[in-house]
Amino acid sequence: MPLALRPARPDDAALILSFVRELAEYEKLLHEVEATAEDFARDLFGPQPRVFCDIAEWDGAPAGFALWYYTFSTFRGRQGIFLEDIFVRPQFRGRGIARALMRRLARRCVDEALGRFEWNVLDWNAPAIRFYRSVGAVPLDAWTMQRVSGEALEKLAEG
Amino acid sequence: MPLALRPARPDDAALILSFVRELAEYEKLLHEVEATAEDFARDLFGPQPRVFCDIAEWDGAPAGFALWYYTFSTFRGRQGIFLEDIFVRPQFRGRGIARALMRRLARRCVDEALGRFEWNVLDWNAPAIRFYRSVGAVPLDAWTMQRVSGEALEKLAEG
Repeated sequence: MPLALRPARPDDAALILSFVRELAEYEKLLHEVEATAEDFARDLFGPQPRVFCDIAEWDGAPAGFALWYYTFSTFRGRQGIFLEDIFVRPQFRGRGIARALMRRLARRCVDEALGRFEWNVLDWNAPAIRFYRSVGAVPLDAWTMQRVSGEALEKLAEG
Repeated sequence: MPLALRPARPDDAALILSFVRELAEYEKLLHEVEATAEDFARDLFGPQPRVFCDIAEWDGAPAGFALWYYTFSTFRGRQGIFLEDIFVRPQFRGRGIARALMRRLARRCVDEALGRFEWNVLDWNAPAIRFYRSVGAVPLDAWTMQRVSGEALEKLAEG
């Protein structure tokens, strides 16, 4: 099988940035990308990383990635995984690569006794939502994410 | 001022479970709480914890808590904070305790150069939503959380 999944290495930082920018372009959010390759190098490959990345290669060519971190559910009393980004380059789609990346993370959840595997989806992204239904995900329609950032965050910090 | 905020200690595990159960009762989700005090002791106070908790005391009495973990935004290229739970016991409300807990986390975001401070809210919880607007949070209405857990997670892991 030409598909190989592996953990990202420090020399993947520029590749990860490319993936993030390609995903953002698809999401019509490229203008929001501020990250640099140095940001990924610092936070993914430091001494005690809190964020992790798996790379998918097809016949040795970089085809996609999944970037994730650990969560915690107070109701379950267990950690979980939040999938921050998953992306497969268009020319590699239809080969089960995204499913393989998600299966790998689900496998980690089972192996590490993690209770929940979660992520967010843009409501207009119907192909992604269909795919997520096919892997057993349910939407948490009763909840809405809240965010403080930028000047509002500084203002709250000042009290 | 009778309010004091401090990081949770290992001997707070039972108190944290009480807070979680009281919050779940308010959310009409008490039947979903499976966590034990041992779960909190293990995941909050191990050698390299990934989840953290602040305790609020009023005149020395436990009044509330905030439980949180680090996130990562690929667009920002920065870590952030996700507030998993925040709760103030009813008899201590109206004294600015929740705001002080959130201000402390916002302060941490600024001090550690974290880009985003985020959490979820149940859509029917109007008092909480009003409070979150007052601290500068915006709702991310275009996104819906997806979750795989239980048997679906095991099935996905098996492929």
